[in-house]
Amino acid sequence: MSQVVVQNFSISLDGFGTGEGISFDAPFGHAGERLHEWMFATRFGSSMFGTPTGGQGVDHAFAARHDVGIGAEIMGRGKFDYRTGPWEGLGTDEEWRGWWGDNPPFHTPVYVLTHHPRPSIEMEGGTVFHFIDAAPEAALELAREAAGDLDVRIGGGPSMVRDFLAAGLVDVLHVVIVPIVLGRGTRLWDGLEGLEQRYDVEAVSSPSGVVHLVFSR
Amino acid sequence: MSQVVVQNFSISLDGFGTGEGISFDAPFGHAGERLHEWMFATRFGSSMFGTPTGGQGVDHAFAARHDVGIGAEIMGRGKFDYRTGPWEGLGTDEEWRGWWGDNPPFHTPVYVLTHHPRPSIEMEGGTVFHFIDAAPEAALELAREAAGDLDVRIGGGPSMVRDFLAAGLVDVLHVVIVPIVLGRGTRLWDGLEGLEQRYDVEAVSSPSGVVHLVFSR
Repeated sequence: MSQVVVQNFSISLDGFGTGEGISFDAPFGHAGERLHEWMFATRFGSSMFGTPTGGQGVDHAFAARHDVGIGAEIMGRGKFDYRTGPWEGLGTDEEWRGWWGDNPPFHTPVYVLTHHPRPSIEMEGGTVFHFIDAAPEAALELAREAAGDLDVRIGGGPSMVRDFLAAGLVDVLHVVIVPIVLGRGTRLWDGLEGLEQRYDVEAVSSPSGVVHLVFSR
Repeated sequence: MSQVVVQNFSISLDGFGTGEGISFDAPFGHAGERLHEWMFATRFGSSMFGTPTGGQGVDHAFAARHDVGIGAEIMGRGKFDYRTGPWEGLGTDEEWRGWWGDNPPFHTPVYVLTHHPRPSIEMEGGTVFHFIDAAPEAALELAREAAGDLDVRIGGGPSMVRDFLAAGLVDVLHVVIVPIVLGRGTRLWDGLEGLEQRYDVEAVSSPSGVVHLVFSR
């Protein structure tokens, strides 16, 4: 049976999955790259930028699962784009195709949740962005159908992950706690009191300083 | 040189150091004992209740430091008592002497921060509760003097730990992240953006499921 998984979702000690002040130059706002440095230091993370280097320890073991067994992703508009609202009138960026260049690292259908649907965009390497205005359950139904026997990744940002968790739709939640205090931004855990009661929880610290937390059911 | 230390300070994944609804029957509110079960399962923690049993692994190693090298503690009224406001008129509990019985586990002077000073209380085993209305710096000066060459423990609750951290007064912060989502209560990290920049941070996960986080400078 295919599963619904959250992978490599990085948060600060105070639970923020993104910072404040998101812009083209700062996709995670004032958090900068600090939430994801641990990933860029792995062989998996470095391979996004050319010749793979970096560690193959516990951080890599987790990070590399991103490429295994996923048949579709659902992401929020906020992961796909740094703006909100209608696509029309966004000027030269009206044709925004995401952050990831011509060949995004998904290689599957990707359902982008937005109140402003637009035509799908087919990229190189198998990624197809679909733009849908749907509640978590309905979006998951589409993604499951596209994924077949493979798993569905819930891609972020924090508020949509929270929505899927609150709706009880997530089978595996892999959170990475980065030892920084961000102070502001969007929190992951809000509204999820008692979440742990529905899961087995395992924590493992990495020599890099981050802690991997896995909720599974 | 003596240090100012926070020890065994347990928080939920969402950063709460106490829950909501604090009362005589629920010193940590709706959190119950969940934030401290890891400690009661150690030899150190179980020894508070009679014959010591329990593990002597990483949780015990951290917990047992409570008894070593401390010359004074500063705690908030909220750790000493479940009520706020003037002591007069609290009825039969007007003579409240803390949660810990006749021989509290401190064995040093303890400075209780309160806007309502009252006469000191001398307990068995060396604990003396002093009640002072003082800012963090002034309270620390008193406690340092009492501690001599020994360290000063900042005992909690969360809002007073936060005040001492914000004032830059803490040398070692040992936080224990318990894998539960409390949802409400008093948070530790609020107002501490960038705290990690002033410390080295180390994280280690325990087989019990908690994560020990040590900030030191």
